[in-house]
Amino acid sequence: MPKPCIATLDLEGVLSPEIWISVAERTKIKELRLTTRDISDYDELMRHRLKILDEQGIKLSDIQNVIESMPLIDGAREFLDELRTLCQVVILSDTFAEFAKPIMKNLGYPTLFCHNLEIKEDKIIGYKLRQKNQKQLAVEAFKSLNFEIFAAGDSYNDIEMLKAADRACLFCAPDTVKKEFPQFNAVETYGDLMSEFLKFA
Amino acid sequence: MPKPCIATLDLEGVLSPEIWISVAERTKIKELRLTTRDISDYDELMRHRLKILDEQGIKLSDIQNVIESMPLIDGAREFLDELRTLCQVVILSDTFAEFAKPIMKNLGYPTLFCHNLEIKEDKIIGYKLRQKNQKQLAVEAFKSLNFEIFAAGDSYNDIEMLKAADRACLFCAPDTVKKEFPQFNAVETYGDLMSEFLKFA
Repeated sequence: MPKPCIATLDLEGVLSPEIWISVAERTKIKELRLTTRDISDYDELMRHRLKILDEQGIKLSDIQNVIESMPLIDGAREFLDELRTLCQVVILSDTFAEFAKPIMKNLGYPTLFCHNLEIKEDKIIGYKLRQKNQKQLAVEAFKSLNFEIFAAGDSYNDIEMLKAADRACLFCAPDTVKKEFPQFNAVETYGDLMSEFLKFA
Repeated sequence: MPKPCIATLDLEGVLSPEIWISVAERTKIKELRLTTRDISDYDELMRHRLKILDEQGIKLSDIQNVIESMPLIDGAREFLDELRTLCQVVILSDTFAEFAKPIMKNLGYPTLFCHNLEIKEDKIIGYKLRQKNQKQLAVEAFKSLNFEIFAAGDSYNDIEMLKAADRACLFCAPDTVKKEFPQFNAVETYGDLMSEFLKFA
């Protein structure tokens, strides 16, 4: 009998490109390239980003236009489609619902737990974390519902999720993260990620 | 700013026909028509069903064939597709993953929390509830993750889910259920169900 299982996956870097890096490339503003890979304190990172957007007059719709034109990582949709036939999937991301919507459409609307922006007349004036440590807390909540959890992510804000899961691996993580957390298998392709899942399921 | 929201929906009677009623019609075994609408004790109902299947020599694959050919309720896919653009959706059902799979495919793989069957050589020898009161406990877990919950269901096994939610309504419920739980609005069409959701969102 298969174990009731939920796969919890990070979004950016695992299924889609990093949103802020794409925005940085399009706007040619280097400072927007920083991610949780670089500044592990999320609030510090976000305040930094919003300050730059304000200084440069970049609106929500500008960022949404970038995201709409951003393709998924090659093979992501096929990987996710297969995984969704094998177990339940919940995307746990520290992005914002307002950014994620076009990505979710391209992924066939998997369930997404993330955060929300505060918007005033198309200007991003703040953000509201639904919950601190939301990835870890979601995994723990699913475990309390008697699911076993397989988790995959690529960066610092995924580590507590990976630690809380029954089985976890890093996917396309930078060397710094792989070196700092050698307890997690690190895979680089969707084929190998599926193999990691199938060892567990 | 939109509230982070999860809509938790029952499956059978809300999006798909009742599986056991369809099986009863196809096999012409009247006793398989009973559902949680008729026997509110789920374990009693399931033991009754498995006994009949055993007596009549009905295998898992026979039931899966019935389910595969069973259309969704008219308009269900369109309703669900629209709802998934507006909030997160989790189907909370007391069916079994082995039965639900073709239904989930027809619904575009929404997230489903349900139970599992115990199978031996295509014979259903038992079932394993992932958790008692799983619908209510899932709603409570989602609330602990700071989501607000909209719930819809049609029968006795949905009532605790509806009570636990922030806003809830009955959908195409039998008169007995509507009479017993007048605290819930009762709607009969997907248009009205969407209106109930939009009042909340």
